[in-house]
Amino acid sequence: MPNPIEFYFDFSSPYGYIACEKIDELAAKYGREVNWRPFLLGVAFKTTGGVPVPTIPMKGAYHLRDIIRTTKYHGVPYRHPTVFPISSVSPCRAFYWLDAKEPRRAKDLAKALYHAYFLDDVDISSADNAVAVCAKFGLKADEARAGIADQAVKDRTRAEVDKAIARGAFGSPYIIVDGEPFWGSDRLDQIDKWLATGGW
Amino acid sequence: MPNPIEFYFDFSSPYGYIACEKIDELAAKYGREVNWRPFLLGVAFKTTGGVPVPTIPMKGAYHLRDIIRTTKYHGVPYRHPTVFPISSVSPCRAFYWLDAKEPRRAKDLAKALYHAYFLDDVDISSADNAVAVCAKFGLKADEARAGIADQAVKDRTRAEVDKAIARGAFGSPYIIVDGEPFWGSDRLDQIDKWLATGGW
Repeated sequence: MPNPIEFYFDFSSPYGYIACEKIDELAAKYGREVNWRPFLLGVAFKTTGGVPVPTIPMKGAYHLRDIIRTTKYHGVPYRHPTVFPISSVSPCRAFYWLDAKEPRRAKDLAKALYHAYFLDDVDISSADNAVAVCAKFGLKADEARAGIADQAVKDRTRAEVDKAIARGAFGSPYIIVDGEPFWGSDRLDQIDKWLATGGW
Repeated sequence: MPNPIEFYFDFSSPYGYIACEKIDELAAKYGREVNWRPFLLGVAFKTTGGVPVPTIPMKGAYHLRDIIRTTKYHGVPYRHPTVFPISSVSPCRAFYWLDAKEPRRAKDLAKALYHAYFLDDVDISSADNAVAVCAKFGLKADEARAGIADQAVKDRTRAEVDKAIARGAFGSPYIIVDGEPFWGSDRLDQIDKWLATGGW
């Protein structure tokens, strides 16, 4: 079996969302699985000194324009959320709660959470809203609510975030193919060639 | 006449160098001219709070790897300079000195300066080395030396840097097509489509 592709992303990241829409098809082309691993960019920022891009003079205004243009360029439907960026702790915990009991479905929940935020303008930073997305996805609301609040899920989330950062994830998406790290949805073309050729 | 493409770049920027190798061919495909406009990223950083990427934990190590991989991906010859990054004031002044008297040749001098830095490992931050590149390019060394030191050239350089920043350039390359800004050599594919379609 070839190595799975490691896919690190933050639920508040539009470029992570673009990658979420593209990565499975790309991986399937080369018979690869994808390990979906949400993490918290805010924690990485404590190491890198990073700040949310929208707050940066000049870059912030460009960033919004680039998101709108780039999603259209890739044919990915997008509506810029009213609240942006957000803390992504709740959706991250919802993911790892489901991942612990039904790992095959966790990826689809990640997509549902991304769609709620970047298509339906649902502020998924709120635990109530994250639970509502889980319910719409077909999970039991009370179980999802308990899961997000569960200490074991919180611990697992924290451990996964630490692992992501230990793997080098300082931005979103951060994608590792056979040990080679790629940052940004604009590296998907290089990933395609890397998978096809084994690297250069 | 269609608008020229505005090409802002810093002589210390590997991604600016990639764009320098690609932009003329891309523009020619659509009958466009390119206005080459070197600027100083360090001055933009005073507004954006940016810092040289190599100094950033995690991101710095990735950055170097990405440069090597991305230049190969684009088929652009590259040797990572011994001294990196550098202050690009001297090459910037050399460019605007020549631009004032022989604007048609300034672009080719920019390429020669980039090649000296990113192929031949010449530290072009030194005025002596920048002059040596000018001499090798076919200009008179004493004139180039006087040009770089000339107050009018310094003032022009300063004014061009201010203009670039006023146009929004916070990174390198920063390329404007009919008012639409694109940051990074990884936006050349979008620029191609933008020129072909008039935007979306």
